[in-house]
Amino acid sequence: MGKPIILISNDDGIESAGIHRLVDYVKDFGEVWVVAPDKPHSGQSSAMTVNAPLRIISKPDYNSARMFAVTGTPVDCVKLAYHTILPRVPDIMLCGINHGSNAGNSIIYSGTMGAVMEATTVGVPAVGYSLLSHSPSADFSETEPFIKHITSIVLKNGLPAGICLNVNFPAKVKIEGIKVVRAATSHWTEEYQEYLDPHGKPFYWLKGKIINEEPEASDTDLYWLDRNFATIVPARVNQNAIDHIDSTSALLNMD
Amino acid sequence: MGKPIILISNDDGIESAGIHRLVDYVKDFGEVWVVAPDKPHSGQSSAMTVNAPLRIISKPDYNSARMFAVTGTPVDCVKLAYHTILPRVPDIMLCGINHGSNAGNSIIYSGTMGAVMEATTVGVPAVGYSLLSHSPSADFSETEPFIKHITSIVLKNGLPAGICLNVNFPAKVKIEGIKVVRAATSHWTEEYQEYLDPHGKPFYWLKGKIINEEPEASDTDLYWLDRNFATIVPARVNQNAIDHIDSTSALLNMD
Repeated sequence: MGKPIILISNDDGIESAGIHRLVDYVKDFGEVWVVAPDKPHSGQSSAMTVNAPLRIISKPDYNSARMFAVTGTPVDCVKLAYHTILPRVPDIMLCGINHGSNAGNSIIYSGTMGAVMEATTVGVPAVGYSLLSHSPSADFSETEPFIKHITSIVLKNGLPAGICLNVNFPAKVKIEGIKVVRAATSHWTEEYQEYLDPHGKPFYWLKGKIINEEPEASDTDLYWLDRNFATIVPARVNQNAIDHIDSTSALLNMD
Repeated sequence: MGKPIILISNDDGIESAGIHRLVDYVKDFGEVWVVAPDKPHSGQSSAMTVNAPLRIISKPDYNSARMFAVTGTPVDCVKLAYHTILPRVPDIMLCGINHGSNAGNSIIYSGTMGAVMEATTVGVPAVGYSLLSHSPSADFSETEPFIKHITSIVLKNGLPAGICLNVNFPAKVKIEGIKVVRAATSHWTEEYQEYLDPHGKPFYWLKGKIINEEPEASDTDLYWLDRNFATIVPARVNQNAIDHIDSTSALLNMD
């Protein structure tokens, strides 16, 4: 059996520092193929390009990894990777290292986790890595031993069907440890800044801040990230609320 | 107390036939506000616009509904609706009627359901309606009694916290009835068509077809849609796999 095939993508684009550090940290575990958006696609969730063509742009190798840019979303990258670019379905898919948090309910909007869930859907064990700093020159070095540890174990053992991991790291600190927890119930508030253009017409730009609805819950990611721990959230792609089928049926008088 | 406020959005864009039929069917239940993308945004999932400004464009009323186009995604529409456009948080949010299926695992990619989940996140009962026809001139008339029934009951009773409904209708047939079920486990295959441009360089366009991995499972949406029934899938926004926290912790030797 040859070396494992490791697919890496992200949502910050193929030029970002985070994806290069991820290659550095995992390159010894297998044959690394990077397939990432040609430009930043934050907040793209599981969006895919339906009504436009896509290009695959071959880039120079980086640190022995093959590099391909795709003119689409993170999900487009994963789909094209296993459909067209990779020699076979990868043994593991890693995403990041994202410049910015994907903790709390940010997982809904995350292009990083959109790509991870796409890989999960086709049975590939997948992990998203994010650092709580939006700086293009963020220091990722503290994350290296954690990323190596998690990647090596998932590569060896796989993950349960339909389950992926959302890993977040605190920024600018010594990481105290790592906790496997659930995502804190949260939502975004103060979401838009309003401006007037030179002609006096309004336009809007998304800002917002995340509100943790359960700040004292010590089994959540936001709780531990605040305390300088890294967090791992096992996430389920399937959103069926099977426990609500009977009550919904009764509510709608469908029986 | 005044009339209920009904927010309607979609992912096919404010000009689509489906959104106009939805207004027609529910306008007597309350004060209808339509906030929808200015152009089609299929496959946009929960994508939001992070790195660009948004415009809100006021349109002429339609059948007593106020109409606003937003230069963004379905999620942008819902966020701007409750942040800026509506007089208050709506009593219900409806999305569609989508031109095309959101059954099986299509819910992951669906801009229709992305908008529905966004409303759910802020506590608004929300329902997505989809017809299994991509035709711009699809006949929605069979869906009317079902949409009126479901909308009136959800408006009266609400939905459990964090739960929304994904409703799909078969196309071009007499609808036999309606079933509350789970989404069938499924994935997409044969996903891209490859072309050569006039200069001989390849480009790719998403096509693909959905594969039902459990065609005999009679508790699923794809099973009943195939048999000309409408389906209602209760879906959970929160993707925490709490039942996998202990095993993940053990796997990673984190205890």
